[in-house]
Amino acid sequence: MPRIDEVGGTADVAVVGVPFDSGVSYRPGARFGGNAVREASRLLRPYNPAQDASPFALAQVADAGDIAANPFNINEAVETIEAAADGILATGARMMTLGGDHTIALPLLRAAARRHGPVALLHFDAHLDTWDTYFGAEYTHGTPFRRAVEEGILDTSALSHVGIRGPLYGRKDLDEDEKMGFGIVTSADVMRRGVDEVAQQLRERIGDRPLYISIDIDVLDPAHAPGTGTPEAGGLTSRELLEILRGLAGCHLVSADLVEVAPAYDHAEITSVAASHTAYELTTIMARQIAADRG
Amino acid sequence: MPRIDEVGGTADVAVVGVPFDSGVSYRPGARFGGNAVREASRLLRPYNPAQDASPFALAQVADAGDIAANPFNINEAVETIEAAADGILATGARMMTLGGDHTIALPLLRAAARRHGPVALLHFDAHLDTWDTYFGAEYTHGTPFRRAVEEGILDTSALSHVGIRGPLYGRKDLDEDEKMGFGIVTSADVMRRGVDEVAQQLRERIGDRPLYISIDIDVLDPAHAPGTGTPEAGGLTSRELLEILRGLAGCHLVSADLVEVAPAYDHAEITSVAASHTAYELTTIMARQIAADRG
Amino acid sequence: MPRIDEVGGTADVAVVGVPFDSGVSYRPGARFGGNAVREASRLLRPYNPAQDASPFALAQVADAGDIAANPFNINEAVETIEAAADGILATGARMMTLGGDHTIALPLLRAAARRHGPVALLHFDAHLDTWDTYFGAEYTHGTPFRRAVEEGILDTSALSHVGIRGPLYGRKDLDEDEKMGFGIVTSADVMRRGVDEVAQQLRERIGDRPLYISIDIDVLDPAHAPGTGTPEAGGLTSRELLEILRGLAGCHLVSADLVEVAPAYDHAEITSVAASHTAYELTTIMARQIAADRG
Amino acid sequence: MPRIDEVGGTADVAVVGVPFDSGVSYRPGARFGGNAVREASRLLRPYNPAQDASPFALAQVADAGDIAANPFNINEAVETIEAAADGILATGARMMTLGGDHTIALPLLRAAARRHGPVALLHFDAHLDTWDTYFGAEYTHGTPFRRAVEEGILDTSALSHVGIRGPLYGRKDLDEDEKMGFGIVTSADVMRRGVDEVAQQLRERIGDRPLYISIDIDVLDPAHAPGTGTPEAGGLTSRELLEILRGLAGCHLVSADLVEVAPAYDHAEITSVAASHTAYELTTIMARQIAADRG
Amino acid sequence: MPRIDEVGGTADVAVVGVPFDSGVSYRPGARFGGNAVREASRLLRPYNPAQDASPFALAQVADAGDIAANPFNINEAVETIEAAADGILATGARMMTLGGDHTIALPLLRAAARRHGPVALLHFDAHLDTWDTYFGAEYTHGTPFRRAVEEGILDTSALSHVGIRGPLYGRKDLDEDEKMGFGIVTSADVMRRGVDEVAQQLRERIGDRPLYISIDIDVLDPAHAPGTGTPEAGGLTSRELLEILRGLAGCHLVSADLVEVAPAYDHAEITSVAASHTAYELTTIMARQIAADRG
Amino acid sequence: MPRIDEVGGTADVAVVGVPFDSGVSYRPGARFGGNAVREASRLLRPYNPAQDASPFALAQVADAGDIAANPFNINEAVETIEAAADGILATGARMMTLGGDHTIALPLLRAAARRHGPVALLHFDAHLDTWDTYFGAEYTHGTPFRRAVEEGILDTSALSHVGIRGPLYGRKDLDEDEKMGFGIVTSADVMRRGVDEVAQQLRERIGDRPLYISIDIDVLDPAHAPGTGTPEAGGLTSRELLEILRGLAGCHLVSADLVEVAPAYDHAEITSVAASHTAYELTTIMARQIAADRG
Repeated sequence: MPRIDEVGGTADVAVVGVPFDSGVSYRPGARFGGNAVREASRLLRPYNPAQDASPFALAQVADAGDIAANPFNINEAVETIEAAADGILATGARMMTLGGDHTIALPLLRAAARRHGPVALLHFDAHLDTWDTYFGAEYTHGTPFRRAVEEGILDTSALSHVGIRGPLYGRKDLDEDEKMGFGIVTSADVMRRGVDEVAQQLRERIGDRPLYISIDIDVLDPAHAPGTGTPEAGGLTSRELLEILRGLAGCHLVSADLVEVAPAYDHAEITSVAASHTAYELTTIMARQIAADRG
Repeated sequence: MPRIDEVGGTADVAVVGVPFDSGVSYRPGARFGGNAVREASRLLRPYNPAQDASPFALAQVADAGDIAANPFNINEAVETIEAAADGILATGARMMTLGGDHTIALPLLRAAARRHGPVALLHFDAHLDTWDTYFGAEYTHGTPFRRAVEEGILDTSALSHVGIRGPLYGRKDLDEDEKMGFGIVTSADVMRRGVDEVAQQLRERIGDRPLYISIDIDVLDPAHAPGTGTPEAGGLTSRELLEILRGLAGCHLVSADLVEVAPAYDHAEITSVAASHTAYELTTIMARQIAADRG
Repeated sequence: MPRIDEVGGTADVAVVGVPFDSGVSYRPGARFGGNAVREASRLLRPYNPAQDASPFALAQVADAGDIAANPFNINEAVETIEAAADGILATGARMMTLGGDHTIALPLLRAAARRHGPVALLHFDAHLDTWDTYFGAEYTHGTPFRRAVEEGILDTSALSHVGIRGPLYGRKDLDEDEKMGFGIVTSADVMRRGVDEVAQQLRERIGDRPLYISIDIDVLDPAHAPGTGTPEAGGLTSRELLEILRGLAGCHLVSADLVEVAPAYDHAEITSVAASHTAYELTTIMARQIAADRG
Repeated sequence: MPRIDEVGGTADVAVVGVPFDSGVSYRPGARFGGNAVREASRLLRPYNPAQDASPFALAQVADAGDIAANPFNINEAVETIEAAADGILATGARMMTLGGDHTIALPLLRAAARRHGPVALLHFDAHLDTWDTYFGAEYTHGTPFRRAVEEGILDTSALSHVGIRGPLYGRKDLDEDEKMGFGIVTSADVMRRGVDEVAQQLRERIGDRPLYISIDIDVLDPAHAPGTGTPEAGGLTSRELLEILRGLAGCHLVSADLVEVAPAYDHAEITSVAASHTAYELTTIMARQIAADRG
Repeated sequence: MPRIDEVGGTADVAVVGVPFDSGVSYRPGARFGGNAVREASRLLRPYNPAQDASPFALAQVADAGDIAANPFNINEAVETIEAAADGILATGARMMTLGGDHTIALPLLRAAARRHGPVALLHFDAHLDTWDTYFGAEYTHGTPFRRAVEEGILDTSALSHVGIRGPLYGRKDLDEDEKMGFGIVTSADVMRRGVDEVAQQLRERIGDRPLYISIDIDVLDPAHAPGTGTPEAGGLTSRELLEILRGLAGCHLVSADLVEVAPAYDHAEITSVAASHTAYELTTIMARQIAADRG
Repeated sequence: MPRIDEVGGTADVAVVGVPFDSGVSYRPGARFGGNAVREASRLLRPYNPAQDASPFALAQVADAGDIAANPFNINEAVETIEAAADGILATGARMMTLGGDHTIALPLLRAAARRHGPVALLHFDAHLDTWDTYFGAEYTHGTPFRRAVEEGILDTSALSHVGIRGPLYGRKDLDEDEKMGFGIVTSADVMRRGVDEVAQQLRERIGDRPLYISIDIDVLDPAHAPGTGTPEAGGLTSRELLEILRGLAGCHLVSADLVEVAPAYDHAEITSVAASHTAYELTTIMARQIAADRG
C-alpha cells in the first residue's frame, strides 16, 4: 500500500492510524494497535478471493499516516481527531481508521455525519459501549455510542451491535441501549443462527443508508484476539467475523474503524493478523462500491 | 465480591481456593489457578444478561479464602480439603471451588455427599479421570471419579462426562467408565449436535437430583485454554461451554469446582478469563436457585 | 514409540523428521517443528477412541530419526530428502513425515509416486502452494504442488485443497490451480457444510486411489496454531481438522506429511499438541489399513 | 503483611498502591504495577539479612490498599493522590508507595514536604524526569521533579539522580537539570566506581536531611526489568541497586515510591520480583529508623 | 553426546536426568528441567577453550537417561533416586545430574558418601536450603543440606554456600546454618571481591577432599535465569558463575547436580542455555581429572 | 530519522536494512531484525550525552531502506548485497547496516575495502565466525571473516574479536583464527580488565586505520539479548558494550553493521532496544568524525 504522499496526497480510501488509548478502563496499549495492524498487513496480497475483487486496483487506497492526539487530555484529543477526520473526508476519501481505543469512534462518527448526515451504525464488539460516564468522564472507550446518539449523528433506525456477551452493570444497561435504538445480535446468536442468516438480517436493517462500521477487536474470542484490553470469553471466531463482513458487500459503507488491538497482550501477531484481515475486507467493500459508483 | 469475614463469616455461596497441584501427572502449576481466576474476575460485572440475573444481589456470594493443603503429602491434603469443605457446607453454604488440580474433586464430593447424599455428577473435561492408580497412588488428578464411584458417593444413574476426546490407554478405559455408569458426550458430539440439544439431554439425565458440576478447564480447546496441564486438541470453545452451562439453569446445583488452570502456561489471561466467566455462570445458577428457594 | 534401530531397522510406518526450513518466504523456524511435535506427542496414549483402534498394536510404528538436509542449498536438500524417502519406502514402510517447511512435500511426493505411481493428493492448507517461482526459485514452500503436477507425479483426477482462505496475488492463481485439477474446499465451506459432508465429498473424490495427505498446520486458525510461518485468520478449528481426517479412515493412505510448525511462535505447545494429534490420526489410518491388508 | 484495617487503621509504614498510568509517554500499563509487586512480595520473608533486621517486627508495616485516581483527568488524579497522601501522613505513617507511573511522585512529594518541609531527593531512574511539558501537559511521568523544584518542595542542596543514561533532547536538558540543583551519578559511574563509593557519596550529600527516595524501575537494565514503559539499555543490575540502597541505611528516609512497573511487558515476574526486593529494602530502612527513634 | 547404551552401558561421567519436582514450595515445573537442559546443550561443541580441554575426548561422557521417581510420594522418590544413584556410581561413573528440584540432592549425596565417605560440599544457590521441615515434611527442596549434615554424609570442615541473598525467616536461619559448618559467600561478596578471589578462597577450603557441587540455577539473577521456581533479585551473572567454576578446575569433583530449571518460566531458552553451559564446565572438570588420573 | 528520499537521495550515514537470514545454522529469524531495531529506535532522542554530541545535527543520517536479497540462493544474495553496498558507498555515505544474519558482513566488507582498501576490523561477538564451511557452503553466518581474510580485504594487522566465549569444535579453531591475525578479548577479559582498559587496548591496535565494526548482538549475554539465534551464556552486559564503543570515539570508523537480532526470541523488545542504542553509538561516532572532517 502506498503512502498518501506518494499518490498525490489524496486517496479513495485513506488508511489512518490513531495511536490514542487514554480512554481505556482496564488494560491499556491500543496506542500501538495501528502500527501492529500495518505490520501484520505485510502478509496480505492484492486479490481478495472471498469477494472476488482486487481492492487496490478498484480504488486508490493509501496510508495517510497517524493522527497525533494529546494522550494527556481526552477532550482535546477528541477535537484533534475530529478535525483531522474532517480534513480527510473533505478530500472525498473514505476512512479506514486503525485505533487506538474505542473513544475515537465518536469524533470519527461526527466527521462522517457532518459529511453524510446521520449514519447507520454496525458495531461489532463484546461490549455495548453505550455507558454514560466513568469517573465523570464523558469521552471514554465505553461511551462513544451513547454520546453519538445524544448528538443526533446516528440514524437510530439502523443501529446494531454484533457479538455482545458478558456481564453488565445491570439490566438497565440493556434497556437504555434498546431505547437508543440498538438491536443486538449476541455472540451466541451468531453460533446458533449462522453467519449467513445474521448477515442477511443486518443487510435488511441497514438497507441503502450510509453505513459506518465500527469493530472492536474484542468481538473476537480471546482465543482469536488475546491482544486487547477487555477480553470476554465466548466470542466470535475470526472466520465468523470475516464471513459476516463479506455478507455485507454492497452496503453503502462510508467509513469504518477497527479499534482496541493492544499488541502487548498479543501472541505471535494473531490478533493483528485477524485485525488486518478484517480491515482488508472492509477496504474491499469500500473499493468495490467506489468502482461501482464510477461505473 | 466481599471477603467472607466482611459479611459475618457465612455466605450462601462460598468461593474457595485450593492451591494444590501435587496430584498432576504432566505440567504442574494449577496451585496458582485460583488466584489467577480471582484476578481475572475483576473484569466481571454484577448483572448476567445470559441468565437475566444479578447473582450477587440474589444471594450472598463471598470469597472464603484458600484451603491450605500439604503439598508434600497427597493423602493428608485430601483429608484437609475434605474437613475444610465439611466445615463450609455445614454453614449452609454451597461451594464454588477454584483449584488446584482435579485431585481435589474427591474430597469435595465426599463433603457434598455427606450433606446431600450421593450426588449426580456432571463432569466437563477432555479426560475421563476414572483411571485407577498412577505410580501406585490412589489419589491423583486422573482418578477422583473412580474413587468416588467406589465410595458410593455418586448417584450412578446420573453421571456424565462432557467434552471427552483424545487418546486413552485402551478400550478398557471406556468399558470400565461405562460400567461405573458414566455417559459420554464427546467434544465432537457437541459440534455435531449443538449446545441446545446437549444441554437438553443433560438436563433430562440430571432431573431434580442434587447435582455437582466439576469442570476441568482443559475441556476447552487449547486455543481457548492454553494455561492448563494436559492440553488436548479438538476441544470445546468457551462459547459452547458457557452456553451449555446456561442451559442447565434450574438444575439443583449443590456445589461446583473449576480446576486445572495453570497460569504459567496461560497467555494474556485468556484461560483465567474463560475460567472466571465459567465460574460466574455456575455461581449465577446457584444464586438463582437460592433466591427461588427463598421465594 | 520406539526408535527404528530398536525394532530391527524397519517399520510399517516410519515417523521421519525433516528439520529444513530454507524454503520459507515469511517467518522461518519450521526446522524445529519435527522435534516440537515429537515432544508434544509425549501426551499421546496408545488407544485412539475416535477410530476405535490401537495404532501401535496394529502395525509397527517407529521413529526413524531425521533426514539432515543442507540448509544452504535448496536444490541439494530436495535431492537429499528424495533419496532418503526412496530408501525408507523401499523397506516397505509408509512415511509419516514431520517438517520442516512445505518445500519438502515435493521430494516426498516424488518418492511416493516412484513407488505407487501418480498419487491422489489431499492438501490441507490456508494457501494453494501452487505458485510458480519466488525470487526465481523453483523449490520453495509455496510451489511444491505445481512442480508435482508438472512432473506428472500426481493423479490429477483426485487433487483437493482443504482449508484455503486469505488473499492471493490475483484471480489467475485460482484459474491456474483449477486447470491443474485441484478442487477447493475453503475454510468457510467447512463451517457451512460441516465436517461430515466435507469428509464424504473427499472420500468420493479419492476413491481407492493411492493417497498422499499433506497438511500445513496453518490450515488451522492462528488461534489453534499460532506457531507457524504464514498465519491466516479465519481457519479451521483443530476439532474440524481431526474430525475430517477421522472421516477418511479406509482411504488408501500411502504416506503423509505434516509441515510448517514453527515453535518459536507457539505458545504453551498448543500448535505442536494439535500437530501431534493430527499426526496420530494419520498414523492410525495407516496402521488400520496395514492391519486390514494383513487380514 | 497485614491489611491496615486488620491493625486498627494505622501503621508506621503504609504500603500504598496508586494504579494510575495516564501520565506515560510510551508503553502504558504501570496501572497494574502495584498489584504485581504485591503478588511478587509473597516470596519475601520476615528477616532481612543484608540489613540484619526484621522490618515487620521493628515497626508496624501494613497494606493500606490503593488510591483510586481518575484515569481520564491527570490534574484531578494528582489532587486525589495528594489528598490521600496527606491523610496517610497525618496518621504519622511513612509511605512506601507502589506506582503507577512517575507522575505520582509530585503529589507524594507535596504531601511529604507539607509534613517535613522541603525534602532531600534521591532519584533512581534512567531518565531525568525534569522535562518541562509534553503535549502542553504539566503533569506527566517526565516532569514531576521540575514541578517539584518550581514549587519549592525539594531541598535543592541535596538532589541526586542515580542510574541516568540514554539519549536526551539536547544538552540543555542537562544544563537545566544542573541548575535545579541535581547531581548525576550515571549508570556507567556505578559500574566504574562501585556501589560502596556511590553509596558513600550519596550519604554525604544527603546528611541528616529528611529524605524522599523515588525509584523508577527502569533504573535497572531491561535485562533485569523488562516490564517497564521506557526501557533504556545499559542500566544497573538489581544487585547494584539493592546494595546502594543498603548502603543508605541510617538516612532519615521519610517516604519512598517505586514506580513504572508495567507487568504486561514483564516475564516470569522478574521485574516485579526485583521491585518487591527493592521496596523491601526501603521498608527495612524506614522500620529500622522508626525502631531506633523509639529507642 | 552418546546414549549410555551406545557405549556399552557404562561411562566415566553419566549425565542423568531426574524429572521430579514434588518437593518445591512455590513455582513448580523443574520436572521438565533436565530435558530442557539437554535440548539447550545442542548448542555446545566439543572443545572448551576456557579450560583448554575437550571433555568428551578426555573421558567417556554419556547420557544415562532419566531416573523415574514417584511424583506422588516424596519418601519413595528419594529412595528410588538413591538406589539408582548407587547403581550408577557402582559402575565407577561420576554423575552429572540434571534436576528436578533440589530435593534430589539428598539421595545423590547419600550415594556419593556411600562411595567416597563424607564429601565436601560446594553449594551455589540464592537460598541456604538448610531449613528443617515444611508442612512437616523432611524431604523438600528447602531441606536437603540440613538432612545431609544430620546424616553425617558431609565433610563439615568444607561446606560452602555461594550466591546467597534475599530474606530469611529469621537470624536463626543463619546461626543454625553456621553451626552446621557452612561458610557463606553472598552474591554481593562475589561482586565486591571478584570471581578470582572467590574461587581462590573456595579452592583453599575444599583442598583435596572429595567434592560434590550442587548448583541451584537460581544462584543466577532472574535476568539470567528467569526459568526457576523461587527467583531472588540481586544474583550472580552467568559469567561470574562460569568463571568461578573454571577457577575450581583441579578440585577432586566426584559428582555434581544442577537443579531447579523450570522451563515454563524460561524465555528463549536463556535459563537452559546458562544451565547447559554450567553443566558443561562441571563435566569438563570431571573429565580432566579422569584423564589426569589415568595419566 | 528521515527517509533518504526525503533528503535528496543521499546521506552522510545511510542506515540500511538487510532482511536476510538464510545463512544461519541454528535459530533463524534475523530477517526481521532490522525492522525491530528501527521500531525500537523510536525511543531514541537526538542528543547523545555519553558522547556529548547530537549526531543527526552533526551529519545527515537517513534511512535508506532495505536491500532485498534472494532468501533461496545465498551466493546470489551475497552479490546483491555487495552491489547495493557499492552503490551506497559510491555516494560518499558511510553505512550503518542492520542485519540480517552475519553472512552479510562479507559483502559489506568487500564494498568497504573496494572504497577504502583493506580495513581494520573490530568484531564483537560470542563466536569467532572464522569457520571454513558448513554443509559445504562458503558463505554462512559462521564464515564471513575467514572469507574476508582469504580475499585480502582486511588489514590483518588490526583484527580483533571482543566478547568471545563458549565451546568450539577444537583448539584448531583458535590456532587458525590467530594465524589470520585476530586478537581476542574474551567476555571474561572484559569483566576482569574493565571497559576502559579494553577500549584503550583496542584503540591502540586500530590506530588511524580505516575501521569497520561488526557487531553480532549475541556478544551480549542472553539476559540482555535473548532475541538472537545462537545464544551463549556468560556474555557482556549492554552497559559494557556501550561503554567500550564510546571509548572508541575518534577512531576512523568507515562503516558498521549490527546483526543477528531475531525478534521472535526477543521479549519486551529488550534485544532490539539494546541493538538500537548500540547502533546509535556507532552512528554518533561516524557523525562526529564527519563533522570533524568538515571542520
